[in-house]
Amino acid sequence: MADKPSKGLADVVAASTALSDIDGQAGRLFYRGYDIHQLAGAATFEEIAYLLQRGSPPDAAELDSFRAEIAAGRTLGKLVTSSLAEISSSQEPMEAMRTLVSLASADDPDKDSNAPEANSRKAARLTAQQPILVAAYDAARRGREILPADPGLGIAANFLFQMRGAAPSPREAEILDTCLVLHADHTMNASTFAARVCAATLSDMHSAVVAAIGTLKGPLHGGANEQVMLGLETIIADAPGDPVAAVGPVVRERLGRGEKIMGFGHRVYKTEDPRATHLRQFSAELAQTSGDATCYRMSKDMEEVVFAEKGLYPNVDFYAASVYHYLGIPTDLFTPVFSVSRMAGWTAHVMEQHADNRLIRPDSEYIGDRDLTWTALAQQ
Amino acid sequence: MADKPSKGLADVVAASTALSDIDGQAGRLFYRGYDIHQLAGAATFEEIAYLLQRGSPPDAAELDSFRAEIAAGRTLGKLVTSSLAEISSSQEPMEAMRTLVSLASADDPDKDSNAPEANSRKAARLTAQQPILVAAYDAARRGREILPADPGLGIAANFLFQMRGAAPSPREAEILDTCLVLHADHTMNASTFAARVCAATLSDMHSAVVAAIGTLKGPLHGGANEQVMLGLETIIADAPGDPVAAVGPVVRERLGRGEKIMGFGHRVYKTEDPRATHLRQFSAELAQTSGDATCYRMSKDMEEVVFAEKGLYPNVDFYAASVYHYLGIPTDLFTPVFSVSRMAGWTAHVMEQHADNRLIRPDSEYIGDRDLTWTALAQQ
Repeated sequence: MADKPSKGLADVVAASTALSDIDGQAGRLFYRGYDIHQLAGAATFEEIAYLLQRGSPPDAAELDSFRAEIAAGRTLGKLVTSSLAEISSSQEPMEAMRTLVSLASADDPDKDSNAPEANSRKAARLTAQQPILVAAYDAARRGREILPADPGLGIAANFLFQMRGAAPSPREAEILDTCLVLHADHTMNASTFAARVCAATLSDMHSAVVAAIGTLKGPLHGGANEQVMLGLETIIADAPGDPVAAVGPVVRERLGRGEKIMGFGHRVYKTEDPRATHLRQFSAELAQTSGDATCYRMSKDMEEVVFAEKGLYPNVDFYAASVYHYLGIPTDLFTPVFSVSRMAGWTAHVMEQHADNRLIRPDSEYIGDRDLTWTALAQQ
Repeated sequence: MADKPSKGLADVVAASTALSDIDGQAGRLFYRGYDIHQLAGAATFEEIAYLLQRGSPPDAAELDSFRAEIAAGRTLGKLVTSSLAEISSSQEPMEAMRTLVSLASADDPDKDSNAPEANSRKAARLTAQQPILVAAYDAARRGREILPADPGLGIAANFLFQMRGAAPSPREAEILDTCLVLHADHTMNASTFAARVCAATLSDMHSAVVAAIGTLKGPLHGGANEQVMLGLETIIADAPGDPVAAVGPVVRERLGRGEKIMGFGHRVYKTEDPRATHLRQFSAELAQTSGDATCYRMSKDMEEVVFAEKGLYPNVDFYAASVYHYLGIPTDLFTPVFSVSRMAGWTAHVMEQHADNRLIRPDSEYIGDRDLTWTALAQQ
C-alpha cells in the first residue's frame, strides 16, 4: 500500500492484459505475442482487429467472414445521419467523434448487453463505423455527399476512397493500412485506461469508447500528431522560401526557451519507438513518390536537432504527421484517424476488462485544510 | 514500483486532492475540510458547488453572483435543442446525458480553453445545465414542453419544478438540495477518476465530464441507486399484498444463492457511510409525510437482514432510492440526478488536475503468449 501518490501512475501496474506488451528498454512492441516488426507489412488492419478482439489470428475463412461483418457495419444510424450536418458545422473533429459515437449507440442492437458475443459484435461494428464517421463528418462539413462505401475495399483503402472521393493507389492504401496496424493498441495508454475505468463499472462498450475518444483528444495523447503537423506548417508559413533550412534555428530557439517539441519522447520507450521506424520509412517513400520532400526533410532535420540537443527519440506521432500529410488527410483529421485504428484496441480492452472485472477505484492523498467549521450564511 | 497489479487500484494512491477526504474507519467524509455532517442541512448545493469549484465558501455577495451565473446557465444550446426530441425517443437516460453533454460543448464560448477562468465559467455552466438536461429529456420523451426555469428557485427546487411541472413544497426542495450536497464529491470514485484520466491529456472539461457520465452509468457505480429501486419494485410486484413482509425471505434467499444486494458495502467505508445516515432520515420523514411508508419500511428491513447476514452497511445509493422515489423522481432518472450533483465534483477535479498536471499513464502486467511467429495468410 502506497501512501504517496505515484504522480500520473508512472510505474504503477494498473491491470493485467494479454493484448499488448512493450519492452521499453529494447524498443519492442507486441500484439498478443507478435512483434510489431513482424506484423508491419505482413498483416492487414482487419487481421489485427480480429487478433485483438477475438484472441488469435484469423484463418482465411474467419477473415472473409470478419471482412463481411466489417462491410455490413459500414452504415450510419438514423440519429447520426439526421444530426451530422449540424454537428459538422458546429463541432471540431474530435469533439464531433465523441458526440457521433455517443449518438450511434441508439442504433446498435446489442447496446444493452455486456455479454461476450454482444461485445464482440459491437467491437466489429464500432471498428467498421469509425472510419465512416470520419469520412462522413469531413464530407458533411464540406457540403458534399459521402460516396457509398466500396465493399470490395478494406478499411484503409475504403477510408481514403470515401474521404477523397476517388480511389487511392494500392501502395497508398497499403501504407495507411500499416499505419492503422501500428496504432491499434499500446498497453495502458491514457485513452485505453479511461475506457477500462469506465468499463469496470460494468458500463457499456459505447460509453467506454466515448470516454476514450474524449481522452485521445488531448494534446498530450492523440492530439499530438496534429500538433506536430501544425508545428511544421508554422515553420513553412514563417519561412516559405526555405522551410527546411529554418527548422534547425527554430527548434533550437524553442528548446532554448524551454518549450516542448511535440512528437518526441515517450514515458515507456527509452530508445526508438518501434512504430516510428516504419513511419519514417513511409514518410521518406511518400516524399519521393509525391515529388515534394519538404515535410519529410523538415521532419528528418527536426529529429536530428532534438536528438542532439535533448537526446529524445521521435515517438509514433512524429512521422505519422508527415505520412498522413502525404496521404492527403486534412491536418485536423489526424487524431480522428488515430481513433480509427485505436478503436480495435479500445474495444478489445473493454472485453478483457468485462471478462475479469473489478471496479477501478483508487485512493487519493488529501492535501487540503482539515477540521474547518462551516458558518451558515444566515449566521454571518 | 509494483510488478503485480493492484486489481482495481484498491489502496493505490492515484492523485493528490484538496477537494474531499474520507476517513473510512470512522465513517467520515469532508469537502475541503468541512465534515459532511456539518454541511448537511446547513449549506445549499450552490454553496457546495462554489466551495468545490472556487476553493472556499462564498460570502453573501459571492453567492448572489454565483446564483446569477447558475440562473444564466439554464439554457440549452441550439444543437441540444434541435436533437432532444429524437434523442429522448431513442436513448436511455444516461446514454442520452452522455450524448447531450457532448453536444452541448458546441455552444460553450469557452470550450477550447483550459485556462482557470474559462474552466471556472464552464464548471458553473455545466452545473447549471445538467438538471435542465434531465428535466428537458424527461419532458421531451413524454411529449411535453418543459416549463421555463424559475430564476427565483435554486437548483434543487427548480429541478423538481421543471420535472413535475409544478412547484415542490419547500421541505421537498430542501431535502433534494441536501441530497445534492451529499452526492457532490467523493475522492477518486470511478467517474471522477475517469474525468481526471481524460483531463490529464489536457483534453477539455466537456470531454472529461462526458467520460465521467459514461462511467457513472455503470451498475457498479451510479447505476446502483436505480438497481436498488428496481429491487424494491420487483418485491412489490411479486408480493403486492404485503411487500414489507416479503423482504426478509426474498433477501435471505438471494444472499443464499450468492447474489449481491445492490446498495450495500463500499470499498472505502468500514462502517456506516455518513451520507446514508442523512438519507435514511429523509426516507423516514418522506414516508411519513407521503402517508405511504412501504418503501421506507422495506428498506429498513432489508438493511437489517443484510447487516445480520453479511455485516454490510448501506451505502449512499441505498436510501437515495427510496428518497428519490418519495420525491416523485422516475426510477430511471435516479442516476441522472446523481450526475446533477456529481457535476460539481467532476468539474472541480478537472480544474485541480489541469492546475498541476501530469499525464495519467499506468503500466500493465502482460499475461499473454510470447514470441509468436506471424504467418501471412497468403503463405498458409
